[in-house]
Amino acid sequence: MPAPATPHLIALLHGPDQRGLVSKVAGWIFDHAGNIIHADQHRDQEEGVFFQRVEWDHEGELAPAAVAQAFHGFAESIGMRSIVAVSGQRPRIALFVSKFDHCYHDLILRWKAGELNGEISLIVSNHEDLRAASESYGVPFHHIPVTRDAKPAAEAAQLDLLREHHIELVVLARYMQVLSADFLAQFGRPVINIHHSFLPAFVGARPYHQAYHRGVKVIGATAHYVTADLDQGPIIHQGVASVTHRHSISDLIQKGRDLEKMTLSQAVRWQLENRVLVYGNKTVVFD
Amino acid sequence: MPAPATPHLIALLHGPDQRGLVSKVAGWIFDHAGNIIHADQHRDQEEGVFFQRVEWDHEGELAPAAVAQAFHGFAESIGMRSIVAVSGQRPRIALFVSKFDHCYHDLILRWKAGELNGEISLIVSNHEDLRAASESYGVPFHHIPVTRDAKPAAEAAQLDLLREHHIELVVLARYMQVLSADFLAQFGRPVINIHHSFLPAFVGARPYHQAYHRGVKVIGATAHYVTADLDQGPIIHQGVASVTHRHSISDLIQKGRDLEKMTLSQAVRWQLENRVLVYGNKTVVFD
Amino acid sequence: MPAPATPHLIALLHGPDQRGLVSKVAGWIFDHAGNIIHADQHRDQEEGVFFQRVEWDHEGELAPAAVAQAFHGFAESIGMRSIVAVSGQRPRIALFVSKFDHCYHDLILRWKAGELNGEISLIVSNHEDLRAASESYGVPFHHIPVTRDAKPAAEAAQLDLLREHHIELVVLARYMQVLSADFLAQFGRPVINIHHSFLPAFVGARPYHQAYHRGVKVIGATAHYVTADLDQGPIIHQGVASVTHRHSISDLIQKGRDLEKMTLSQAVRWQLENRVLVYGNKTVVFD
Amino acid sequence: MPAPATPHLIALLHGPDQRGLVSKVAGWIFDHAGNIIHADQHRDQEEGVFFQRVEWDHEGELAPAAVAQAFHGFAESIGMRSIVAVSGQRPRIALFVSKFDHCYHDLILRWKAGELNGEISLIVSNHEDLRAASESYGVPFHHIPVTRDAKPAAEAAQLDLLREHHIELVVLARYMQVLSADFLAQFGRPVINIHHSFLPAFVGARPYHQAYHRGVKVIGATAHYVTADLDQGPIIHQGVASVTHRHSISDLIQKGRDLEKMTLSQAVRWQLENRVLVYGNKTVVFD
Repeated sequence: MPAPATPHLIALLHGPDQRGLVSKVAGWIFDHAGNIIHADQHRDQEEGVFFQRVEWDHEGELAPAAVAQAFHGFAESIGMRSIVAVSGQRPRIALFVSKFDHCYHDLILRWKAGELNGEISLIVSNHEDLRAASESYGVPFHHIPVTRDAKPAAEAAQLDLLREHHIELVVLARYMQVLSADFLAQFGRPVINIHHSFLPAFVGARPYHQAYHRGVKVIGATAHYVTADLDQGPIIHQGVASVTHRHSISDLIQKGRDLEKMTLSQAVRWQLENRVLVYGNKTVVFD
Repeated sequence: MPAPATPHLIALLHGPDQRGLVSKVAGWIFDHAGNIIHADQHRDQEEGVFFQRVEWDHEGELAPAAVAQAFHGFAESIGMRSIVAVSGQRPRIALFVSKFDHCYHDLILRWKAGELNGEISLIVSNHEDLRAASESYGVPFHHIPVTRDAKPAAEAAQLDLLREHHIELVVLARYMQVLSADFLAQFGRPVINIHHSFLPAFVGARPYHQAYHRGVKVIGATAHYVTADLDQGPIIHQGVASVTHRHSISDLIQKGRDLEKMTLSQAVRWQLENRVLVYGNKTVVFD
Repeated sequence: MPAPATPHLIALLHGPDQRGLVSKVAGWIFDHAGNIIHADQHRDQEEGVFFQRVEWDHEGELAPAAVAQAFHGFAESIGMRSIVAVSGQRPRIALFVSKFDHCYHDLILRWKAGELNGEISLIVSNHEDLRAASESYGVPFHHIPVTRDAKPAAEAAQLDLLREHHIELVVLARYMQVLSADFLAQFGRPVINIHHSFLPAFVGARPYHQAYHRGVKVIGATAHYVTADLDQGPIIHQGVASVTHRHSISDLIQKGRDLEKMTLSQAVRWQLENRVLVYGNKTVVFD
Repeated sequence: MPAPATPHLIALLHGPDQRGLVSKVAGWIFDHAGNIIHADQHRDQEEGVFFQRVEWDHEGELAPAAVAQAFHGFAESIGMRSIVAVSGQRPRIALFVSKFDHCYHDLILRWKAGELNGEISLIVSNHEDLRAASESYGVPFHHIPVTRDAKPAAEAAQLDLLREHHIELVVLARYMQVLSADFLAQFGRPVINIHHSFLPAFVGARPYHQAYHRGVKVIGATAHYVTADLDQGPIIHQGVASVTHRHSISDLIQKGRDLEKMTLSQAVRWQLENRVLVYGNKTVVFD
């Protein structure tokens, strides 16, 4: 979508549920020259938590960034945590890859087709394989080998690159290394991974082999935020496909490639449109 | 779901889009002792129409019916058409059936399982076949034969029954007769039909035969509101299933029965939860 | 489908792969006045096992049962294990149920609609709840309470009923008791269960609660053969459906009912059409 | 899959049904040093037509091409038409493209990933847009403008290219020109198109616009053989996806891109594995 002429803002809010929240938020926006063009909210009845995504046209004279700042303060005053994005701000993304290239090509081609509300600005890999492709796409490529002993040094180099390129989102596009808790803490921004199974079934290595040997009739892929617990982070999206006894392990892997592409790209798209809120170990996706 | 202790109201609104609508509605509800528990809205950018479904707990002393009445007036004052339902009001439903009984059993069993927010109060059929089943379910059954010449008389008898039983929704559960424009106008309330194809493909008679002969690889079913134009009414829901060359016409019919059940029951459920707004020849479904 | 005028036979074969098997089987059938109307086979390349389902019209004068017997001997002579069914033989089925009735009604209505190639001949329950419904369907109902201490006695009573009614297939239609290894051994015929999750995720109790708390975006149901290892038997079929953060646990349970019905009935249909071969802990489904 | 060490052959057969066909084919293969590794067949009961796909390891000393030739004669002797492919023969493919590039990139990347049993040897376009991409993929690109007046000349130039490059399959990857009956006759080999709707709904131009205005809840894509009747050729595969009132026309177009890629690539894969038989206006797909 082309950026709209009038700037618009998107806020993601959550906090303890209380009477009148929808009205208060709508009233604040109206009072600040905003026209709500989309609002969606959710209540977790068990936990008593309120979640909202609200998007509005800003028709006043104040700079959008200043409105975002003011909204932030307002949200705090009613006990809500908030994230506010301004239209036209396109987050910078780093793709971490190894040798498998299907998610890599898929994301880059979608970005070039205008499907992603962000900029793929950096490719980081522990292998050299995708250097030429990255160059032909015109995206900087950095090879940072990761060995068991030198992992802290490798992660330090990765963090330097992320800072230098002002990266706001890391996408692990079948990156075959585990990121340390320390790396995640230092980066401090979302990292999205694609796991090639229907979590929580088949955590860990070689999930298609596990699925084959269990004789399942459906395989899956799971896009989730990366946390310090491997394959346990909040799930953003899952895709599934039917399989039969005729499918060999290599057939599952081939079918899985399509699942992984579709599932990861959908999760990244939602992330970039500020549609995902994390709480506890779950997500609210305002799709 | 059990009816909540606090009464709640559900309003469906639509009308010309204008600045501040979300805020005005939220403000009105707050001012009338309501706490919004769910709100969803949509803007048709091409047509400039605003749609909203808003559900709120009513915590004041006024009777819910009076609040509904007042909201109605408020909506009118801001140029919106509205429908307001009060929790605990369960619409009375008539099923029209012929000989096929899969949708009939499916809807009645879902109703008995508590899935439907309404009461199946009347079975009308142009055949005797389902009398015994209806009696064992404890639902009044009326046989009204329909012949070409006596159709106006049959429809008059049907309308009498609908009035007498205070029916607010008619569901054509594979009823094999066309309702006249006059019948629809006189009933004046929603009539939902299940068409056994993926409309607009295969309108008219024997759609599975048509699908078989065209060699399609996917079949469908379409739940839609009945209008005077056969198979042209606003679509509420569509279901699809894959088929192959191995499926004979009778296989398509068997597979189709599951599609029809799932698709029709979903549409009826949405209707009964006040989730469907019609405009022009389309629907907005707040699911 | 009506039974065809010409008797036909269906053989399921498996054994060590070897050159010329397809030709040998086809030749034997041709030599015994058979005309193959459908044949499907599979090779497990890893294990070197050959599987075949072959269905033929028997046009000779020999009684079909005698042909089946002869085929059995032929299969043995080429190192294959075989099961041979004769058209018109409709296996007798027992449904085991507790209180949930959705799979129960679904299977009985499908049977009455002619979808199942067998006869539902017996309902066994550890509760009285479904007695009246069973009587109105005209199927014998037996209440056999199961308490921890009296489980062996209860299972003995169940086995007596199965023998007395000549039951060839037991379907656990949300039966909430675990069958002992001893029961399974003594019955000696297939027992199909529906587990209300996407196995191997969420084994054990209350899988929808587990799924809700993990925050998955897809739920599933799994029809499998019952073995002495709970929830570990060979999988016949799996169904899945998307869910979002909006779905409460009770919504998952409601959505799950449809998955369970569709998945279990499909597995039972395949079983009754002799389409399923078990080897190791997996199935080959000739669909 | 790597080509197997032992050559294997794949035959597609069809003709009038008769007793003993499976046995005759299996016997011939056995007598000619073949070991059937996969066989699948189908009978159209209405039309009395028999279809078979049979794949065998050839273990004899005769050259595979000679066996193929001999099989051809055998098939004719039993009244069957046949196509026989020899493993290792990878058909040469031409992609026809215009400006939309999603199916183009998708097919080329799948080919490079080893998913397609053929060689993409030629790109033909009526626009210059994809020249650079084609060069970076290393595939010859030819720009042949098509104007209303010069269409016969353009098609003649296209046919020259197809002959010169020994093309055996043309794939229209969102090629926005209609091929003439004359072109199809002269090429004489399969041409596969992707239509961006669920045929037979929404034939002709701008199907996503048509779907939007009809308010459908499911959109589709259809891969079919091209015949002289626009959008009426035999359907190979169809894909579908759910949509809601929230999806604008441009959302439908974006969602549709994924459908088109998945549907077209699956059809092309089946074609290249000799899995598709056409008869009348339908296909038999041995998947």
